[in-house]
Amino acid sequence: MSQFMDVHHGMKGITADDLKQAHQADLAIEKEEGVHFQKAWADPESGTVYCLSEAPSADAVQRIHERAGHRADEVHAVPLTV
Amino acid sequence: MSQFMDVHHGMKGITADDLKQAHQADLAIEKEEGVHFQKAWADPESGTVYCLSEAPSADAVQRIHERAGHRADEVHAVPLTV
Repeated sequence: MSQFMDVHHGMKGITADDLKQAHQADLAIEKEEGVHFQKAWADPESGTVYCLSEAPSADAVQRIHERAGHRADEVHAVPLTV
Repeated sequence: MSQFMDVHHGMKGITADDLKQAHQADLAIEKEEGVHFQKAWADPESGTVYCLSEAPSADAVQRIHERAGHRADEVHAVPLTV
């Protein structure tokens, strides 16, 4: 399992409820790909959302996001943390 | 105090030691701007680094990063988390 940071653009005006619902949609199906979405942060002004996950691959992260209705614009493995 | 996510590009090949040293350089002076860098994640392959902080403003985050020698390419307030 590795850690991933994925980024969604174009989410201007996203609300706390939108973020919560999107996250719940991921959590509902994430086990099917062995993914766990740990945390997400959103900037409604620029429309940027960052999601931190543990997953077997970037593709697995993307598959869950796609099936939940919100494909990520970027998915990066982040093997280094401090 | 608000939470911020900032992003650095162009860091291809960054090592665990590089990340640790950069983070330490921020921590050494962060109090002067009332900033606290909580966590950072790096993808050496794409050369992307994400830093999560608590700070009074995006400018304060950037001032610390600049003085520590690594200006961020983007600084986003992330008032929403889940």
